[in-house]
Amino acid sequence: MALWSGRFTEGADAFTQRFGASLPVDQRLYAEDIAGSIAHATMLAAQGIIATADAEAITEGLQGILTDIESGALVFDVMESEDIHMAIEAELTRRVGDAGARLHTGRSRNDQVATDTRLYAKRRAGELMAANVALREALIAQAEANFDVILPGYTHLQHAQPVLFSHHMLAYVQMLARDWGRLAAARNAADACPLGAAALAGTTYPLDRFTTAEALGFDHPIPNSLDAVSDRDFLLDLIYACSVSCLHLSRLCEEIVLWSSAEFGFITLSDAYSTGSSIMPQKKNPDFAELIRGKSGRVVGDLVSLMMTLKSLPLAYNKDLQEDKEGAMDAADTLKDCYTCAAGMIATMTVNADAMAAQAKKGYLAATDVADYLAKKGLPFRRAHEVVGHLVLLCDQRGCDLEDLTLDDFKAESDLFESDIVECLNLPAIVAARTTFGGTAPAAVRAQLDAAKAQL
Amino acid sequence: MALWSGRFTEGADAFTQRFGASLPVDQRLYAEDIAGSIAHATMLAAQGIIATADAEAITEGLQGILTDIESGALVFDVMESEDIHMAIEAELTRRVGDAGARLHTGRSRNDQVATDTRLYAKRRAGELMAANVALREALIAQAEANFDVILPGYTHLQHAQPVLFSHHMLAYVQMLARDWGRLAAARNAADACPLGAAALAGTTYPLDRFTTAEALGFDHPIPNSLDAVSDRDFLLDLIYACSVSCLHLSRLCEEIVLWSSAEFGFITLSDAYSTGSSIMPQKKNPDFAELIRGKSGRVVGDLVSLMMTLKSLPLAYNKDLQEDKEGAMDAADTLKDCYTCAAGMIATMTVNADAMAAQAKKGYLAATDVADYLAKKGLPFRRAHEVVGHLVLLCDQRGCDLEDLTLDDFKAESDLFESDIVECLNLPAIVAARTTFGGTAPAAVRAQLDAAKAQL
Amino acid sequence: MALWSGRFTEGADAFTQRFGASLPVDQRLYAEDIAGSIAHATMLAAQGIIATADAEAITEGLQGILTDIESGALVFDVMESEDIHMAIEAELTRRVGDAGARLHTGRSRNDQVATDTRLYAKRRAGELMAANVALREALIAQAEANFDVILPGYTHLQHAQPVLFSHHMLAYVQMLARDWGRLAAARNAADACPLGAAALAGTTYPLDRFTTAEALGFDHPIPNSLDAVSDRDFLLDLIYACSVSCLHLSRLCEEIVLWSSAEFGFITLSDAYSTGSSIMPQKKNPDFAELIRGKSGRVVGDLVSLMMTLKSLPLAYNKDLQEDKEGAMDAADTLKDCYTCAAGMIATMTVNADAMAAQAKKGYLAATDVADYLAKKGLPFRRAHEVVGHLVLLCDQRGCDLEDLTLDDFKAESDLFESDIVECLNLPAIVAARTTFGGTAPAAVRAQLDAAKAQL
Amino acid sequence: MALWSGRFTEGADAFTQRFGASLPVDQRLYAEDIAGSIAHATMLAAQGIIATADAEAITEGLQGILTDIESGALVFDVMESEDIHMAIEAELTRRVGDAGARLHTGRSRNDQVATDTRLYAKRRAGELMAANVALREALIAQAEANFDVILPGYTHLQHAQPVLFSHHMLAYVQMLARDWGRLAAARNAADACPLGAAALAGTTYPLDRFTTAEALGFDHPIPNSLDAVSDRDFLLDLIYACSVSCLHLSRLCEEIVLWSSAEFGFITLSDAYSTGSSIMPQKKNPDFAELIRGKSGRVVGDLVSLMMTLKSLPLAYNKDLQEDKEGAMDAADTLKDCYTCAAGMIATMTVNADAMAAQAKKGYLAATDVADYLAKKGLPFRRAHEVVGHLVLLCDQRGCDLEDLTLDDFKAESDLFESDIVECLNLPAIVAARTTFGGTAPAAVRAQLDAAKAQL
Repeated sequence: MALWSGRFTEGADAFTQRFGASLPVDQRLYAEDIAGSIAHATMLAAQGIIATADAEAITEGLQGILTDIESGALVFDVMESEDIHMAIEAELTRRVGDAGARLHTGRSRNDQVATDTRLYAKRRAGELMAANVALREALIAQAEANFDVILPGYTHLQHAQPVLFSHHMLAYVQMLARDWGRLAAARNAADACPLGAAALAGTTYPLDRFTTAEALGFDHPIPNSLDAVSDRDFLLDLIYACSVSCLHLSRLCEEIVLWSSAEFGFITLSDAYSTGSSIMPQKKNPDFAELIRGKSGRVVGDLVSLMMTLKSLPLAYNKDLQEDKEGAMDAADTLKDCYTCAAGMIATMTVNADAMAAQAKKGYLAATDVADYLAKKGLPFRRAHEVVGHLVLLCDQRGCDLEDLTLDDFKAESDLFESDIVECLNLPAIVAARTTFGGTAPAAVRAQLDAAKAQL
Repeated sequence: MALWSGRFTEGADAFTQRFGASLPVDQRLYAEDIAGSIAHATMLAAQGIIATADAEAITEGLQGILTDIESGALVFDVMESEDIHMAIEAELTRRVGDAGARLHTGRSRNDQVATDTRLYAKRRAGELMAANVALREALIAQAEANFDVILPGYTHLQHAQPVLFSHHMLAYVQMLARDWGRLAAARNAADACPLGAAALAGTTYPLDRFTTAEALGFDHPIPNSLDAVSDRDFLLDLIYACSVSCLHLSRLCEEIVLWSSAEFGFITLSDAYSTGSSIMPQKKNPDFAELIRGKSGRVVGDLVSLMMTLKSLPLAYNKDLQEDKEGAMDAADTLKDCYTCAAGMIATMTVNADAMAAQAKKGYLAATDVADYLAKKGLPFRRAHEVVGHLVLLCDQRGCDLEDLTLDDFKAESDLFESDIVECLNLPAIVAARTTFGGTAPAAVRAQLDAAKAQL
Repeated sequence: MALWSGRFTEGADAFTQRFGASLPVDQRLYAEDIAGSIAHATMLAAQGIIATADAEAITEGLQGILTDIESGALVFDVMESEDIHMAIEAELTRRVGDAGARLHTGRSRNDQVATDTRLYAKRRAGELMAANVALREALIAQAEANFDVILPGYTHLQHAQPVLFSHHMLAYVQMLARDWGRLAAARNAADACPLGAAALAGTTYPLDRFTTAEALGFDHPIPNSLDAVSDRDFLLDLIYACSVSCLHLSRLCEEIVLWSSAEFGFITLSDAYSTGSSIMPQKKNPDFAELIRGKSGRVVGDLVSLMMTLKSLPLAYNKDLQEDKEGAMDAADTLKDCYTCAAGMIATMTVNADAMAAQAKKGYLAATDVADYLAKKGLPFRRAHEVVGHLVLLCDQRGCDLEDLTLDDFKAESDLFESDIVECLNLPAIVAARTTFGGTAPAAVRAQLDAAKAQL
Repeated sequence: MALWSGRFTEGADAFTQRFGASLPVDQRLYAEDIAGSIAHATMLAAQGIIATADAEAITEGLQGILTDIESGALVFDVMESEDIHMAIEAELTRRVGDAGARLHTGRSRNDQVATDTRLYAKRRAGELMAANVALREALIAQAEANFDVILPGYTHLQHAQPVLFSHHMLAYVQMLARDWGRLAAARNAADACPLGAAALAGTTYPLDRFTTAEALGFDHPIPNSLDAVSDRDFLLDLIYACSVSCLHLSRLCEEIVLWSSAEFGFITLSDAYSTGSSIMPQKKNPDFAELIRGKSGRVVGDLVSLMMTLKSLPLAYNKDLQEDKEGAMDAADTLKDCYTCAAGMIATMTVNADAMAAQAKKGYLAATDVADYLAKKGLPFRRAHEVVGHLVLLCDQRGCDLEDLTLDDFKAESDLFESDIVECLNLPAIVAARTTFGGTAPAAVRAQLDAAKAQL
């Protein structure tokens, strides 16, 4: 129609073919599609639905196609094939004739796509779990290599109490271990087979859905055919797992950036994980930490995208669902790269123990222990807190640290203070005193580290 | 300072007190806070850190405060107390004196807040799991009450193949069963005890963290004190579980709205779950279904809020985390109400089997079965698909259905057709033919229904 | 390092080069980068900072590079160039020697990237504004072609009052006109030139920022150099404008899908904008409407991504900002395609006036007018509403419409009814009676339509 | 029904009344509702649709109700009134009888709610614009008070080049000025009157929509009645404007937190905008900056909520839209408080010029200027960059700054260096050299500051 077509820069047919096609995205599912088709054809033959010779021709044909795709000999074109499923089947029929045309018996693209996507999600979740372990290994190695290093522990980015650097690294190991669990849950969510649900209602063929589910390594066939073709929860679970882990990485990388600053100087990143400036010759920037931090937005955006797309969709399959895969692929790609990059960055960074120690001496990190000292002598904690507040004020006025006060200074605030107060003022002693489970004392951290290693 | 204070409508002190206070939100944690404090005090006494008499005074005092809060006798004011934790402790000290001031020994607000929030999350997750079961019961009851009713199954909101209404209801039961699993996972995520992590590093007191964890019903104490005070994954998990379930409800309610329309007419909502119009006297609106559908946005927004708040936070505790609870509470409140409302709406709706049947007769729902008929006689499925396409076109031209065609009409397209083709054209027969696991045949659906009931 | 590098499937150098590179995304900025460099070099020469011969060599060299990129003769490789800016400059230096190395005088990648991105955003916003107009033209054309067609107007997807189809189409034209305004605002937000801000602080060269701003078509240079390199509001504004318009399209396409259903049957999409099924031969699916509807999630996800990435970034430039462009490009690409597809779909759809009329006769669409009839005779509206409620109940019991009631039936409920009540019961009359500004009476809609056309 | 009602803790009627009610949220619209009703009644009388005496009774009645609500004498209960509109009308009818029942003539709740919400949005946008100005005033005041203070400018949180503190503050003023523009755009978006659209189609009464629009201060009546009752773009625009400004505040507060740390020490927050710790007596935490930073998540969540709620809604009004107001109110409340808090925090903070200067001496901030020095003597900039890179390396090895190198050291790298190189090595000189528009030289910043003040 003249009115609107004048705006087209490509023909309407070419435009709708391109706009409607999912091939550029779903071609990454080729191996899963071929695996699913071989399992389906094999089952069809075993059930007597197609001839064994047909199943064999299909299997051989598909294996040839797989080889040719992986060698680059076979490339599909979005102007010819709407999606990877149609592309492979058309190619199969070109190669093996009528047998190829029988492959789609008792199957619909709806259950085929859902099957391929679940196989893909399982594979990617597994890859991410491995990359997650590698990052934890790198953090643990740094924790071990710098086990006794003390840095100021922060709340509100203010010096709070001294902690072991290893303890700090292990906090991230804990977060990542939870992320591993979420990835595993996402893999489990994908681990059910839609094949045999057909378009939405099951089929009139005597399919054996348990056989295909088992052949493809699925835990079980999905028990409701409408749900089988419309459920995308497993992709939400995967992107959600990626999102939370990216948030954890954003926290880690925020600290890497802080620690790399001139003001902190706690670590030095290796040159391989730093970059320069086009204009400022002196710069050594923690680009990769920033990039990982920034990519958290991308993955959370992927989650929101799919959630919004799923909202208000009636049963069973709707074309809106074609938008399901790109975000999940992007989330998995992104997190995998972020894990790999973070592992390399952490493994190669240098810990500047002296700079950490120098900062830990600032900010009255012993204050809590002095209050505890009083409380242990019977002063209610809230009162002890006030006494130490006065001592801190005194230090502030004198420009000194609690360590620099005399016993008389202490006694002027409370006569509960005795000479053993010095034992509360030394950083290693403060750290060593926190021996309860999960605390920052070396023995407690060592136990935590051993458990973290055992968990890998 | 004159420049900006001129804009204040309240004093700066009053403003910052109100702005910084979390009491309006966290007062809902009062019971958890009291339980946590009693467990802590009891352990402190058992470990010899405070006197048994002090622990008893604390316990009695707190129980009195609990009673007074629940009776309404004790109300806290945001202008006096920043948060519920300080409010309760201050009241305790007013009531029991120095013993109250000893409660905070070996504890910080950081681990206290985290403990309370986890207890709360566990409780809310449990409530949601129960409400989830109630909604599944309502869906199952409708599935049983209308077991044999046939409606058109849809893809792309176009008639596809006939399905049992019970099969359709059970698809939602499957979704909700997965949601139950996500809620259980969120409860598990919260099921670890931060108490004893203190501010961030553990404490110098010989706390027994295993005792308090057990007393409060937690699975175990959290093994890293920094992580203990900074982890909010369990809230993300809870809001995420709520979000996905709200998306499922948005799909269910979209269908309720469609089915209630004059065009569909598949169901009639009870008056209790319908509303009228202020201007149009004839209206009977599915307001509650729309409201549930609309609330999916709210809960996904809660998820995004917390994700963004957590992004880039360095360890350990930061005040940003004060924003963690309101969204989680809102998500839990919203989903619980939505479950309850949906259960009532589903339980009281009337299924109009005739209207469903009338629609199922439109749209050539037998077409797939006719194609399957040919394929089973040896025609490759892709060819059979084409033959039926021609038959549908013929019907379109004549304004009739496939059932209305003569055997000659069929034979004109393919001589594989014989008189038994009529067996493929009848809706109950089409439904009954889909007997594979998960299909819409009555026996398959009955098995699915029994499994769904067993799962409750 | 052995520990983690064992996981690498590519060398660490290759990995970080790929991971850190923005070339795959920002190569789309090549034309803007070249334009920016030519403007910069020309100004440098005019200010006597570089030789005129150098500026000419740079300009010629860049024009050659532009030609070669557009012809495909020059392709950049991510393993050699981190971004399009470095790639082009390196190629320039290869071609023109030292003059090329002088191009970066008084410039940093920070202001260079920001300039290129703003030029790009302005161009894309302009394209979207044109595509927006084309879609409005298609809607207006359908409104004109079916001006007098009546369909039921809905609230809560329940029949409410009859409206003109043209009035309904024009509601979307209004939404799209607002979207056009948001796109224009986004273009204005981008319309300021960062060039000359250098890395973050301005430069020591006597640049004339007003000259380059004007040469590149910007409204003015940005007045704060720190802000110039860190501001990405203009991309947020662009993605936000795209998001809101995608939400409007999701509403339009929801209606297209509903109207294409067997139950509604209000429109017939052209074959070019419909697709079939791989298994169900009778299907004609509104795939494109669903795809547009689904893509709303994608674009809102792009918005959330960038918002989260920007959160908590200190001044001035941080590498996180490298993530800024991909979402904006995706949002613009997506909306442009959606506009184009929607325009084609709307322009080629057939309006089934009879089906609309048939539905408009259901649901007591005259009820409001009957109530107004009474109110105009002095009955308070709230009372009139009740009277008509009783009449509707009567029709429900009899299975008839208000038109089918006798005058006695009316009088039994209120003796204000007289024989002229029949004038309130006819659909065209009901429509025609709504003559106030913005109402659905033909004259009012005609005025609205003329205004909408004038606005294009 | 026994099955599900056993789960109810309140009766089904009470539950649905509470769940469906919007009163707890929309009671904040009481003043707008009363204003809208007075304007409507006055116009009805002027058009002869109701008696003047009725209009007067309505107006007087409503003014009394307004007084009673504001004095607290009249409180509405969610168990009696679904929303504020019904609550006020019911009270009016109680007070003035039949006249009250005539108020709803030619009006529906759909246009009434939309009108009230738009009036509210306009008011809140205006308040936010004023609070935005107050924050800019505080930033400008600090810029003036510390005009010449130099701090290191950062990219990648690495020292880059020295900048004026005032220049840095003014970057935020620029961001906030754009935010003011977005708030103004949101106010404009709300500035059109839906009154007279009635339920969705206009009315049969001879309303004068221009009169009511003008009486309520709207720019014009909305030209399409369907759009009038379904459009919520103006709320999106408002929440979006709030979101972007919250992101800007998250950046400012990130810097406040960094600058308050022991490592930076650039500023000291006043005690009024700091808090202590329950366990650590020495702490002074930048709680308010963190709280503002964290609240960015909340507001972006509000935006996502409404976007998701609006997705896929068919025309015209749907109950989903009831969810529109709470997020908008929350966004406006939050931003207003954040503006106020930030203004107070900025106005009362102390700038530690010495600490900034000490840091500015680290990190070779002169490096760019040394490279420019060479480039101005004819060395291509890319070569000059390399030379300075070597000098920086030399300093690194010696543990000194560029200022500490001898002329021989410089000459060893390039014989273009002469004794005037010292003029490039001094921080005030480096700052002063950046004189181009928008640069950090005092004169340029002064011009910027004057413009920023003029803009208020």
